[in-house]
Amino acid sequence: MSRKTSLSGFHEWLPQERLVELHVLNTLAEVFELHGFANIETRAVETLGTLLRKGEIDKEVYTVSRIHETDAPDPDDTSRLALHFDLTVPFARYVTENAGHLAFPFRRYQIQKVWRGERPQEGRAREFTQADIDVVGDGALDFRHDIDVALVMAEALSKLPIGQFMIRINNRKLAEGFYRGIGLEDTAGVLRNIDKLEKIGAEQVAQGLQDELGASSEQAELALALANIRAEDSSFVTEVRALGVQNELLDEGLSELAEVIDELHKRVPGTAVADLSIARGLDYYTGTVYETNLVGHEQLGSICSGGRYDALATKGKRTFPGVGLSIGVTRLISRLFSHNMVEASRSVPTVVYIALTSDEDWSAAQDVAQQLRARGINTEVATKAEKFGKQIRHADRRGIPYVWFTNYDDAGTATHEVKDIRSGEQVPADPNEWFPPTDDLRPAIRQVDQLKDATPQR
Amino acid sequence: MSRKTSLSGFHEWLPQERLVELHVLNTLAEVFELHGFANIETRAVETLGTLLRKGEIDKEVYTVSRIHETDAPDPDDTSRLALHFDLTVPFARYVTENAGHLAFPFRRYQIQKVWRGERPQEGRAREFTQADIDVVGDGALDFRHDIDVALVMAEALSKLPIGQFMIRINNRKLAEGFYRGIGLEDTAGVLRNIDKLEKIGAEQVAQGLQDELGASSEQAELALALANIRAEDSSFVTEVRALGVQNELLDEGLSELAEVIDELHKRVPGTAVADLSIARGLDYYTGTVYETNLVGHEQLGSICSGGRYDALATKGKRTFPGVGLSIGVTRLISRLFSHNMVEASRSVPTVVYIALTSDEDWSAAQDVAQQLRARGINTEVATKAEKFGKQIRHADRRGIPYVWFTNYDDAGTATHEVKDIRSGEQVPADPNEWFPPTDDLRPAIRQVDQLKDATPQR
Repeated sequence: MSRKTSLSGFHEWLPQERLVELHVLNTLAEVFELHGFANIETRAVETLGTLLRKGEIDKEVYTVSRIHETDAPDPDDTSRLALHFDLTVPFARYVTENAGHLAFPFRRYQIQKVWRGERPQEGRAREFTQADIDVVGDGALDFRHDIDVALVMAEALSKLPIGQFMIRINNRKLAEGFYRGIGLEDTAGVLRNIDKLEKIGAEQVAQGLQDELGASSEQAELALALANIRAEDSSFVTEVRALGVQNELLDEGLSELAEVIDELHKRVPGTAVADLSIARGLDYYTGTVYETNLVGHEQLGSICSGGRYDALATKGKRTFPGVGLSIGVTRLISRLFSHNMVEASRSVPTVVYIALTSDEDWSAAQDVAQQLRARGINTEVATKAEKFGKQIRHADRRGIPYVWFTNYDDAGTATHEVKDIRSGEQVPADPNEWFPPTDDLRPAIRQVDQLKDATPQR
Repeated sequence: MSRKTSLSGFHEWLPQERLVELHVLNTLAEVFELHGFANIETRAVETLGTLLRKGEIDKEVYTVSRIHETDAPDPDDTSRLALHFDLTVPFARYVTENAGHLAFPFRRYQIQKVWRGERPQEGRAREFTQADIDVVGDGALDFRHDIDVALVMAEALSKLPIGQFMIRINNRKLAEGFYRGIGLEDTAGVLRNIDKLEKIGAEQVAQGLQDELGASSEQAELALALANIRAEDSSFVTEVRALGVQNELLDEGLSELAEVIDELHKRVPGTAVADLSIARGLDYYTGTVYETNLVGHEQLGSICSGGRYDALATKGKRTFPGVGLSIGVTRLISRLFSHNMVEASRSVPTVVYIALTSDEDWSAAQDVAQQLRARGINTEVATKAEKFGKQIRHADRRGIPYVWFTNYDDAGTATHEVKDIRSGEQVPADPNEWFPPTDDLRPAIRQVDQLKDATPQR
């Protein structure tokens, strides 16, 4: 499963790989719907004005223009079209545009491609699929949705063939309250520096806090001490309290994060941790924030991130608070393939290949196929009566497990046999009754390797 | 279901409309897989060079460039990226790129958005979804696949909530052989004129044939006589023969078309017709061609078109013949909505809404939800113990059919009741056993109106 793509940063899967992706997408959709999320899709393009609404675009955006436009683009024209770079901004626009038609709190999931003109590298593609869930309220949104969306994602991820994962959760109120409590008022600046912790290490971050923000070495030390706290239950509250910082916003954040972690610890133990180093960089979150690592593949970065916004969208004086999480499906799947962690049992949906004894039998073979398909058995019919060996090889090459043979006697009466071409076993069969073992009905998606130290294959 | 979109030509559906679209897409995918078609997706962008390969681009293409490119585009630069305008050109590129990894004949289906910078009008959007099936061979492809793909599409369309449809089939060999047989050598020119028949009428077409191609009035009359022939079985062969034209290619085309029509007439009667006026304009088909009308909505144009290519793709001296059909899903669905032909029974996947008696019951309510979800029942939990009337109204507004109530006695023992909020009936229920009627399990997609003269609602 290792190929080069003809356009760097744009992945295309072979049919057998696509089956793995479809399995992932269908599993996600199923779990999201079990929890009452409704599906929508938004158009691929937004105006630059919409994309700019959240401030400067730090993403590399692809603009779109009709081929017959030959003038140089006007950088100040916000009505220009561009491909969306995430699903959050389009969703916010969709909510304000359709607010009159939606019932709040509105639970939606959205699985679509997004585009970014970034330098391609593993984990970063130019075209990739995201799977988002968000709950958005009209004016207010109960805090319990912060717990709910994490529970949904923990359930969804646990059903994927990806091995162990860990949702790391923090709270902006906790962090900002703490920084204020130790006298650091540029909380965005502190977050920006703390965000680099995994990349550049504690010493460099401490230096940055002092050089950039004028923090004292004690302040830098306390900020780093906070970022070092991790716990799978609310014991982190005692650890934070031990740092001796007093602040109302900190109290609120501690209480929220404790509630999230306690419920996750109870319902989905071993899949979530309070991790006070999580900052989520430049994004405009206002409460809970989430990142998720694939255990043993931490250097891949987060595969599922998100958080709470006090105002995901606004419409005049109306605000729509929201909380949600987004899975980077392409990032996840590329990793599964590059480390040979998963495979599909065959490259086609077909279960049965109907061989022809004579070219004239084609239409009669279609009748047999119809009988099998009527009972949900994916079936193909040969178009030519080549030698049986050749017909069997054709099925085998594509991973089709069964070949069907029909013989007609002089009176036109048919007798049927079906051959499992893996075992060679051939038995009489009735097209109205024969059914394959459940495992053969659909291509199986198998988790090949859960070892942490799996060697990359490309 | 009638709204304006904020960008003309770009449709976005409300959750309830999206359920209809999902039903259509899932039904198509299911039928395609029953017939052994494997799914792939190709990237949204191609180089202009690839899009130009089939000759001049007569479509309005959207080019794509990174936002930081500020120079005027170079119209001669074929490495520029553009959004694909159909799924055939990208599929041909995919086949040549991955030929070494595919087993031929390769049966694939592809359901994706495509983009065209056209002037928006009903039936023509700038972003729309296509659902394509193609079978492609390596060097050769048995003619029977021409019958097969039409059978698959007839079955797929018959499972959609769209009422009656008619697949109209012709054959390029038949038409070109006939034109040559009557002495008109510019067969492409004749086809181009015949293609306008429905738009401008027989008289204008006859005039065009004479003015543009120098045809005699007898030649024009014969070409039009051919285009007038329609039959649901192979009786059209006699009608063509009665026109007294002799040509080998014509013979071949007649025999192919008769074989297609006879098999369709036998297996899916009333859904296909030999229609010798079908030309498929500028497309480079070389045999069977297909168009499909929604009966009573003929002015919408074709909802499912395609044909046979001797060389869908080439790679050096290797050619890949193919035959396939493409459904214009967005065109079809827009029509269903604008004529109120179909509706979803609710806007959410949710079957059960668990009400809260007290705010403290939330986590216990999650346990109940988990029991229901474990048996495939889509369930949401209220976040606040508002008055029951308010909680019921919230469920009702979103079309959720059932509300679940749990009471805990002093010993903590739970008793459960479930209310059908349409009938008001409330009965005791066990979260490990209760199951909704099958009709309520998923949102139902109902065909509202099959009348031909349905009044458009927008």
